[in-house]
Amino acid sequence: MTGVMPVALIGLGTMGAPMALNLLKAGYSVIVHNRTRDREIPLAAAGAQRAESPQAAAAAATVVITCVSDTPDVESVLLGEQGVIHGAAVGTVVVDMSTISPTATQRMAAVLAERDIAFLDAPVSGGSEGAKNGTLSIMVGGTAADLERVRPLLSALGNTITHIGPTGSGQLTKAINQIIVAGTYWAVAEGMTLGMKAGLDMEQVVQAVGSGAAGSWSLTHRSGNMIANEYPLGFRMRLHQKDLKIALDAARELGVTVPMATYVDQIETGLIAQGYGDEDLSAIVRSVRQQAGLEF
Amino acid sequence: MTGVMPVALIGLGTMGAPMALNLLKAGYSVIVHNRTRDREIPLAAAGAQRAESPQAAAAAATVVITCVSDTPDVESVLLGEQGVIHGAAVGTVVVDMSTISPTATQRMAAVLAERDIAFLDAPVSGGSEGAKNGTLSIMVGGTAADLERVRPLLSALGNTITHIGPTGSGQLTKAINQIIVAGTYWAVAEGMTLGMKAGLDMEQVVQAVGSGAAGSWSLTHRSGNMIANEYPLGFRMRLHQKDLKIALDAARELGVTVPMATYVDQIETGLIAQGYGDEDLSAIVRSVRQQAGLEF
Repeated sequence: MTGVMPVALIGLGTMGAPMALNLLKAGYSVIVHNRTRDREIPLAAAGAQRAESPQAAAAAATVVITCVSDTPDVESVLLGEQGVIHGAAVGTVVVDMSTISPTATQRMAAVLAERDIAFLDAPVSGGSEGAKNGTLSIMVGGTAADLERVRPLLSALGNTITHIGPTGSGQLTKAINQIIVAGTYWAVAEGMTLGMKAGLDMEQVVQAVGSGAAGSWSLTHRSGNMIANEYPLGFRMRLHQKDLKIALDAARELGVTVPMATYVDQIETGLIAQGYGDEDLSAIVRSVRQQAGLEF
Repeated sequence: MTGVMPVALIGLGTMGAPMALNLLKAGYSVIVHNRTRDREIPLAAAGAQRAESPQAAAAAATVVITCVSDTPDVESVLLGEQGVIHGAAVGTVVVDMSTISPTATQRMAAVLAERDIAFLDAPVSGGSEGAKNGTLSIMVGGTAADLERVRPLLSALGNTITHIGPTGSGQLTKAINQIIVAGTYWAVAEGMTLGMKAGLDMEQVVQAVGSGAAGSWSLTHRSGNMIANEYPLGFRMRLHQKDLKIALDAARELGVTVPMATYVDQIETGLIAQGYGDEDLSAIVRSVRQQAGLEF
């Protein structure tokens, strides 16, 4: 039964902690580890075992999920001194649900493969709400066979699990997601600001344009923030920029010119410097408001 | 009964001709006029009366709809030598469903108001398909009272009729629509090109990212064109650029900086010069493909 498969979850941040809880709820035996060990305590109270290192966590599990902040963190957790690679048995499946570099992903997968440790890159979208409610969208790179081994487990974490292709393609898909998010939010920001400067009834404007070719998740769900000039989370701007940097690096490596994504990255740099980095990404409209002489 | 209200429709192009047919179907008495008079013939065959000038058309109607190409055309039809203003009785309602300058709209409405002729700006989205099926989205500027007088008639043309605010606000909303369309299509173009250059299974990518924060009408309905590198109409790029110019002029007049819309306008200039202006707007991806060294 997959229900009792021991699963290690390394990285108990905003995403990882609720994911660990969902695995416990689904009946899995969960081993948790976090660099700041105190974060393990609430999970232990909920029934998880604690492990003192990624190595120890991996030694106790057949599937290892990593959910940490950035590429160097995954490298350290997987390949570092007390890394997963030193604890994982042959046949273990490592599922990296962090958002990191696609090329670094391919390098790490190759190192793990030498020890017969399987690897899936499986970044997510849907944010902390999605992590909490088990409604993440999971974009998976790696072999279909490895994905099938962990699919029941991933089903406890997300409701859309898409196998994109070989190792790294999950991360590339996440990069594409963040590029499109950047441009779509920005498009809404330009349009909303024009209407606000003209003094239009913006709720009517959104209603009029929202169901046609201008329609988007961003217009439906984030134009309200832009109109109110209030940006509750949501998706933190500095985290989007971190992901966007990965996407821009990938575009550069692949030789793809992405001027709009680059522009939004620059705008985010300015807004983060002004102290807005912990607001929802829709706060990129502040830049358009500012240049239009509106309150920002 | 509004059903027998005589309605003049001036401008029988891709949009105007099917709109006239829908008015006839709804039981209105329809008077048509078109600069190239031959275009009146199929409408006459369907039961419309022909008028030899905008003036004559207005003289026979209580509501005058104009649906022509650009600002100077509306000026000529309304205020020219044989214009609507010389034929319309006091109390006539003029409904301009063209996409034109918001400020020129306000000027013309003021001239008509001196003769006690009411004016609504009522540009549409939904394209030729929407015009044919009576499913346009209609964005209305002018007084609520004037809108109520023609609402039954507009209901024969569209299924979303939104009163935005005073004269010009319908056109401003259309400008906002085209700015958002520009940026959203472009965002999808950058994302799709990154995935194509990486050799990903793009149908899987679209499925994985389409239901979250990257989702848009453009991603759902136009990414397929971008992936196939085929751009059937749709919405003609050169018509989008014509509308976008109006939007950029409005943004300049209002003092709103819209770098992304300006960028897409520039891209469209280049693609139109290369002969792609009569393709669907999704063909803006050709520029991203070209710079990425993909077939375009």
